[in-house]
Amino acid sequence: MTKDTSSFPDAVYKRTVLSPLFDGALAHFVGSVRSINQAHLVMLYETGILDKPSVKQLALALTDIDESLDLDSLEYTGEHEDYFFLVESELKRRVGADNAGMLHTARSRNDMDHTVFKMVLKQKSSQLITHALALSESMLKKAMIERETIIVAYTHGQPAQPTTYGHYLCAAAEVLQRDIDRLQAAYKNLDHCPMGAAAITTSGFPINRDRMAELLGFSSPLLNSYGCIASIDYISGWYSAVKLLFLHLGRVIQDMQFWSAFEVGQLYVPNSLVQISSIMPQKRNPVPIEHLRHLASVTCGRCDTIVNTMHNTPFTDMNDSEGEVQQAGYAVYDSGSRVLELLTALIEQCSINSARVTETSNKACITITELADTLVRQESLSFRQAHEIAAETAKAVIALNRSLAEGYALFKASFRAQQSRDCALSETEYQTVVSAEYFVRVRDRAGGPSPVALNDALKQYQVTFENQSAQVQNYSNSQLDAENTLADAFLQLKGL
Amino acid sequence: MTKDTSSFPDAVYKRTVLSPLFDGALAHFVGSVRSINQAHLVMLYETGILDKPSVKQLALALTDIDESLDLDSLEYTGEHEDYFFLVESELKRRVGADNAGMLHTARSRNDMDHTVFKMVLKQKSSQLITHALALSESMLKKAMIERETIIVAYTHGQPAQPTTYGHYLCAAAEVLQRDIDRLQAAYKNLDHCPMGAAAITTSGFPINRDRMAELLGFSSPLLNSYGCIASIDYISGWYSAVKLLFLHLGRVIQDMQFWSAFEVGQLYVPNSLVQISSIMPQKRNPVPIEHLRHLASVTCGRCDTIVNTMHNTPFTDMNDSEGEVQQAGYAVYDSGSRVLELLTALIEQCSINSARVTETSNKACITITELADTLVRQESLSFRQAHEIAAETAKAVIALNRSLAEGYALFKASFRAQQSRDCALSETEYQTVVSAEYFVRVRDRAGGPSPVALNDALKQYQVTFENQSAQVQNYSNSQLDAENTLADAFLQLKGL
Amino acid sequence: MTKDTSSFPDAVYKRTVLSPLFDGALAHFVGSVRSINQAHLVMLYETGILDKPSVKQLALALTDIDESLDLDSLEYTGEHEDYFFLVESELKRRVGADNAGMLHTARSRNDMDHTVFKMVLKQKSSQLITHALALSESMLKKAMIERETIIVAYTHGQPAQPTTYGHYLCAAAEVLQRDIDRLQAAYKNLDHCPMGAAAITTSGFPINRDRMAELLGFSSPLLNSYGCIASIDYISGWYSAVKLLFLHLGRVIQDMQFWSAFEVGQLYVPNSLVQISSIMPQKRNPVPIEHLRHLASVTCGRCDTIVNTMHNTPFTDMNDSEGEVQQAGYAVYDSGSRVLELLTALIEQCSINSARVTETSNKACITITELADTLVRQESLSFRQAHEIAAETAKAVIALNRSLAEGYALFKASFRAQQSRDCALSETEYQTVVSAEYFVRVRDRAGGPSPVALNDALKQYQVTFENQSAQVQNYSNSQLDAENTLADAFLQLKGL
Amino acid sequence: MTKDTSSFPDAVYKRTVLSPLFDGALAHFVGSVRSINQAHLVMLYETGILDKPSVKQLALALTDIDESLDLDSLEYTGEHEDYFFLVESELKRRVGADNAGMLHTARSRNDMDHTVFKMVLKQKSSQLITHALALSESMLKKAMIERETIIVAYTHGQPAQPTTYGHYLCAAAEVLQRDIDRLQAAYKNLDHCPMGAAAITTSGFPINRDRMAELLGFSSPLLNSYGCIASIDYISGWYSAVKLLFLHLGRVIQDMQFWSAFEVGQLYVPNSLVQISSIMPQKRNPVPIEHLRHLASVTCGRCDTIVNTMHNTPFTDMNDSEGEVQQAGYAVYDSGSRVLELLTALIEQCSINSARVTETSNKACITITELADTLVRQESLSFRQAHEIAAETAKAVIALNRSLAEGYALFKASFRAQQSRDCALSETEYQTVVSAEYFVRVRDRAGGPSPVALNDALKQYQVTFENQSAQVQNYSNSQLDAENTLADAFLQLKGL
Repeated sequence: MTKDTSSFPDAVYKRTVLSPLFDGALAHFVGSVRSINQAHLVMLYETGILDKPSVKQLALALTDIDESLDLDSLEYTGEHEDYFFLVESELKRRVGADNAGMLHTARSRNDMDHTVFKMVLKQKSSQLITHALALSESMLKKAMIERETIIVAYTHGQPAQPTTYGHYLCAAAEVLQRDIDRLQAAYKNLDHCPMGAAAITTSGFPINRDRMAELLGFSSPLLNSYGCIASIDYISGWYSAVKLLFLHLGRVIQDMQFWSAFEVGQLYVPNSLVQISSIMPQKRNPVPIEHLRHLASVTCGRCDTIVNTMHNTPFTDMNDSEGEVQQAGYAVYDSGSRVLELLTALIEQCSINSARVTETSNKACITITELADTLVRQESLSFRQAHEIAAETAKAVIALNRSLAEGYALFKASFRAQQSRDCALSETEYQTVVSAEYFVRVRDRAGGPSPVALNDALKQYQVTFENQSAQVQNYSNSQLDAENTLADAFLQLKGL
Repeated sequence: MTKDTSSFPDAVYKRTVLSPLFDGALAHFVGSVRSINQAHLVMLYETGILDKPSVKQLALALTDIDESLDLDSLEYTGEHEDYFFLVESELKRRVGADNAGMLHTARSRNDMDHTVFKMVLKQKSSQLITHALALSESMLKKAMIERETIIVAYTHGQPAQPTTYGHYLCAAAEVLQRDIDRLQAAYKNLDHCPMGAAAITTSGFPINRDRMAELLGFSSPLLNSYGCIASIDYISGWYSAVKLLFLHLGRVIQDMQFWSAFEVGQLYVPNSLVQISSIMPQKRNPVPIEHLRHLASVTCGRCDTIVNTMHNTPFTDMNDSEGEVQQAGYAVYDSGSRVLELLTALIEQCSINSARVTETSNKACITITELADTLVRQESLSFRQAHEIAAETAKAVIALNRSLAEGYALFKASFRAQQSRDCALSETEYQTVVSAEYFVRVRDRAGGPSPVALNDALKQYQVTFENQSAQVQNYSNSQLDAENTLADAFLQLKGL
Repeated sequence: MTKDTSSFPDAVYKRTVLSPLFDGALAHFVGSVRSINQAHLVMLYETGILDKPSVKQLALALTDIDESLDLDSLEYTGEHEDYFFLVESELKRRVGADNAGMLHTARSRNDMDHTVFKMVLKQKSSQLITHALALSESMLKKAMIERETIIVAYTHGQPAQPTTYGHYLCAAAEVLQRDIDRLQAAYKNLDHCPMGAAAITTSGFPINRDRMAELLGFSSPLLNSYGCIASIDYISGWYSAVKLLFLHLGRVIQDMQFWSAFEVGQLYVPNSLVQISSIMPQKRNPVPIEHLRHLASVTCGRCDTIVNTMHNTPFTDMNDSEGEVQQAGYAVYDSGSRVLELLTALIEQCSINSARVTETSNKACITITELADTLVRQESLSFRQAHEIAAETAKAVIALNRSLAEGYALFKASFRAQQSRDCALSETEYQTVVSAEYFVRVRDRAGGPSPVALNDALKQYQVTFENQSAQVQNYSNSQLDAENTLADAFLQLKGL
Repeated sequence: MTKDTSSFPDAVYKRTVLSPLFDGALAHFVGSVRSINQAHLVMLYETGILDKPSVKQLALALTDIDESLDLDSLEYTGEHEDYFFLVESELKRRVGADNAGMLHTARSRNDMDHTVFKMVLKQKSSQLITHALALSESMLKKAMIERETIIVAYTHGQPAQPTTYGHYLCAAAEVLQRDIDRLQAAYKNLDHCPMGAAAITTSGFPINRDRMAELLGFSSPLLNSYGCIASIDYISGWYSAVKLLFLHLGRVIQDMQFWSAFEVGQLYVPNSLVQISSIMPQKRNPVPIEHLRHLASVTCGRCDTIVNTMHNTPFTDMNDSEGEVQQAGYAVYDSGSRVLELLTALIEQCSINSARVTETSNKACITITELADTLVRQESLSFRQAHEIAAETAKAVIALNRSLAEGYALFKASFRAQQSRDCALSETEYQTVVSAEYFVRVRDRAGGPSPVALNDALKQYQVTFENQSAQVQNYSNSQLDAENTLADAFLQLKGL
């Protein structure tokens, strides 16, 4: 208790907080801080807040710092509270304390911080959306290739009806496209610039917030200045959308896990993605699917971590949304992008084992409802009557361990027994009607699996894909334009 | 183990699952099932799938069931698996098994279920958004009234600068308006109709999915039929957006809790919302704020419950998103709407205690930066010099337990000591410069607290409010139109 | 804004908070409040804090209130803030304000509240543990019956080795018994009585906290009085333990779901628990398993809701852990007990489909490692050599679509080819070695599936079961003893 | 699509899964794998499963690998699936494939993996508990020092009663000690050894599971062998307990945040832990408290991430609990130990600002109830009468902006007005009765703040602290003993 507590920082605080924060800033924030310094100086010059000589001197000093400061060798000493103060001190060394302070006119670490966080998030978010788009493209391409490949469609974990792999993949892709929509909507909230809010309330100096937004590649300033430094929905909204992406992909992954089970075998995972036991040559463990599951789960958990850290924090308080929490969030991109890339590879490389599909289809009589529907339409039976004949036929073929296609005689007998007349359906017609291909082909309503319906749908998904891709392209174009504009404007300052 | 397990349902299953499900269906789903039955019959008639006499007979029977079935007295007996089968059995009693089955042509409980869930969710969601809009309206109205009311703005939990209550409320309202944006985006995904997907793959009958969507008040069918019964992002997307609303409101609630603390007292909570101790007349517990906090937290948790129930479930499996889970989600609207209504009442009734604001402002010298900025602008000092004089002035007035406004002599002395000349700033000018009103007034950049900036902002928020309100109005208009169209079309069937 | 806000309670507050709280108190807290009132009066008498006449009068009045107050017809009027004040007002009506106040000597609603919450939680927790014990008993009984029933054991979702159903159930029961341990440890923290803490700091009156704990059925007082009203780990600790129970059961449920899949069929779910499609007689949907999954998930989510509501709340603040949040927690017992009861019924009624087990075992050659091990032990081959022969044998029988048992000739040929000599293993010995029964029988190490090892283990689990049951029995015995002691002591007061 | 998918591993899989897994194994698992290899060899020798020459050869080879393999320079090439196979291949290079395989007799990567995970978790858990114990020790020491330091105790965020800082710290320490109990109970489930379970079902070889447990420092084997590789409650149970620790500390942190607010000022945070603004000398931001809050929140979220990853995974499947997820969990120890260390430093360095305590106590009349209680005891008033006089006194002093201690005349007048007689209480007695010191002193019931009660309590906490510390000491002693035993036994093998 005789410890000296009169001067900042305490050794434990330095070790547990300041030093990790400094390392994190070096790893993630240096580029954005540089851009903000340059843009702010350009704006201070253009608005006349600073005069030419000061601006030129500061521009040259900033450039010199960039060129001479060796970030890799920096270690946190505690001399400067954080990376911001380190830069300020370098500036003071070059232009003196009086001039160095000018750069900080009409701004604050509050607005700078959230601007930095958004700049980094935008870059990471854009990459994640790009990965998600690559996955959706893979799914759609595969769906096109596999648009006539029959699979067993399950409900309640049991075989229910035939459909096509293409149809299934489009169902999954539809969700993914909506997830990308959600991501892109959340991205918009990353795209408003806090600069100009200063500490809380903007400034008495005649700053130009629009120009700052433009030079830093934002679509516009964020309006309310208190909100600029206090509102965190740009973070929570973004990570909520990311969580949904991985929650939903996790459901497709569960299907793949089941489909590739030894007893099910609907999905063939090629050797490149299967770990094999030397002594049990038939044991093919599709371990990548398992890894996808837990990586997706962990990614969801990491998103929740960030969102829930905001719970019950004051609106106007801040560290809960800042440096360390931002950096904790970056783990999301690590595990998340691995899920997206690996799932893309899996979708591309896996294929349907049609022999197993046929086997299950036969055993499970999954086309039986179409037989009943046909009897209603072509033999004018009531649904009840049609169902009874169909059910009796199914029971009989199962009892004999046959497929439905082999059950014409049994069907015919059942029909006659119940209707006291022969069925008009020929054996060929019967076999068509109970085939999976026919089942699929007649389901040609919008959204159905028949090739014509699926082709229509695929065209719509393609349009959506192109629109979404164009949006991502816009992100990088805007960013690039802003970088060029800023570079030019800053270069001029040095030549004043 | 000698228990008879040959017939459905097992007594425990009946008690733990079927009976609660049935009660839940009676409480929530009856109206939507009725609409679906009517709309489906209209569509089957219009597409020629069923003939006139059958349609008329079914229409009359459905009407008779509605009129004669006493829902309040229904108890679950286990005779019918669920409410759907109960209605079917009532239909059979009236038109015979052969005809009753016709109503189920080209549909399935799979597509019916998710259609019901969406219809109920749309209604509940629309109400929640309406409550959120009422809150945002209250905030904006209050912000207009209090646009010149000075408050202490905090950062890191410490007094930092003056701003206005209106400025603060606008910051909160901006977040709320973005939350409403998120809710309305999520609402769009509730607005696509699954009908026509049938069990999984649509039907071989020439159904009209657009017409079903229209009659039931949806904006359009949901395209992929497998997705119609398998995708659950309409649920997870919606509840994620709702969680964000309450997570963000919880942060404003934390501010109110702090502001109304005995020692802070910036926010005055009137007697109508304060629980008082008889013996401690000065102890005013603003308990409603506490209740808001835990109700908001519980609402967040309930949203998470629904979203996380979907985790690691197969895409193509279903009960995890159905009846019971839907009903578990309805608890969100109970606690959630209470938060919105009570917070609206609080915002309306609470006021700023300006005496306490002044007291804290004085003690904390929160206008000191403006004095320094003024010295830079009017006395051409460097920032460093201006800061030194300002800091010395602050220290001196604090040492004497005075306010900054009372510190002109101290300021003047400090200026002279450091600059070896008198300051040009008169005492009147000085007092203006260190006043909170001046601090606020000169902060007139976009998004700042000065009246002119705030008025501009309020106009923008008003436009947003009106657009958002118009959208909610659209929800109910569409619903009403659909109900009328369906009622007319169904009436015609009875007269065929 | 011209609304009158001068008197409590505001109409919105009354509707959104006070009225629901009152209804919740009536539904859940009346009995505990009564016991506390009685016990407190007994203690005040025994310690001499109140005199005989006052005590007798209060005892008679409390009895009269119990007998005459019709709880069912009570509606919240706002006249009394809550149920506590209602009882106090009834007391005042009977004994006058001066005397009524005596009952509240040396206590406060703070300590009363948490005492009530713990009393209710103890009762609900005890029931939940009883249900969990019933499930563990079922599992152990079933394990005994099925201790020689071969099943396919899976790893990574693929068939790996044979074991017995009894062995599997014991693995699950071990986890369940540890979950019950966790619940019972958490229960202990419900069992310390807050009474005597009064508002925060105990009282200047010579109260007897031990006696209060005894009369109310607690094992002891909770020590620190501030902690009595501020610490909430009794809640968070309990609900965390409950969540784990359902999280872990959810994993067994996932196995049951997979085992009962059409293609797998290892688990036979009897008709009593299967929903069947009329037209697809072979489609047997074991829907109860699905319901178990989502009910377990929802229960986990409800536990999280309570725990996370405490996040970032002050230690010394309170409503976040009180009335409404407590009541929100009771939903856990509804869904949770349904899971436990239904899973117990499933475990009892389901059985292993041994034909399907044999079929999968054969196809997957899951005994192959035992053949290799035998070659090491009996033929003195190295592992590498043994594995090579075994793997070649497996490949060969799979290529011919035979079972391993049918592969003696192929094995013999492989052995000779690689070892240039005949294997000593006879065909009978070979068939024994590759049989699942033998595989299981030789695995007789502690914890293994062989009957001898499993019998040993079952005895240990039985001991654990009995200890855990005795503890639950203790809960109700202590409660009953306390109720009798209190009833006797209170009766005496009325006869003073 | 023409990609070659015939050979393992796929490049994307290698990059996204295998390579990170390998790096993780190198960083965390090498030591435990070495111990398991050595212990297993010892056991195989002692049970006679392997003969002397083989054992010696393997022991020498393992030693050589340890000495010659340069882990720092290892990069994942994909040649060996993972670190396990790398070691096996090194072994093969040294002793040939035939002999190398012997080491893997009667074990599997399944039981090895969970043994490794538990060994690492035990080590990290033990450290975390040690940090938690250091914090509890600090709290108790501080409580002893501050056992007579008066503070304002809050309820509902409002000043309620005086107590001592020692009393408060003991309340917090009680929770912390229960948290440590929960951690130590969870630790027990880390302490059962899976070795001997082999792949799932133990082995046909006469292994000695007890000996393996002993050599690796476990308290015993985990019984059921399927459970050894399938049950994950050791993970979920542990991380649930850790979450609770940080959830509960977060509540104390909230109090510290409020107590150190500018307007409250009850807690003085020394300069070593305060970030100061140069221009606002009175603005002292106790930022470490904020960092504690978000670091605690993030730690909670990281615990949830691990626990929730297990949700809806099959009991018998495994990767969701293995390598990568284990490693994701290690982030908990980083943020968690920082919270514990920094909070310990804060508790040690912060102090109570008694001037501010007095100020708030006076303004809030927080001793008023003791005055009323005294009137009941000494003047034989009813509670109602006593409360009326006390309340009137409080109102009067507040109206005059005085403290209660200055209110004797007002009190006396009120007494006479209501009782028509003079109060016997002298001014000195009155001032004693309304003093915070007296308030605290008379509250001497068990658990109360009076010095005598607090001293008793501190003794109990000290006993608990010593017991808990002894348990942690046991962990490391057992570990050290096992390491020595293993080293000796393994050394002998090399000399066979």
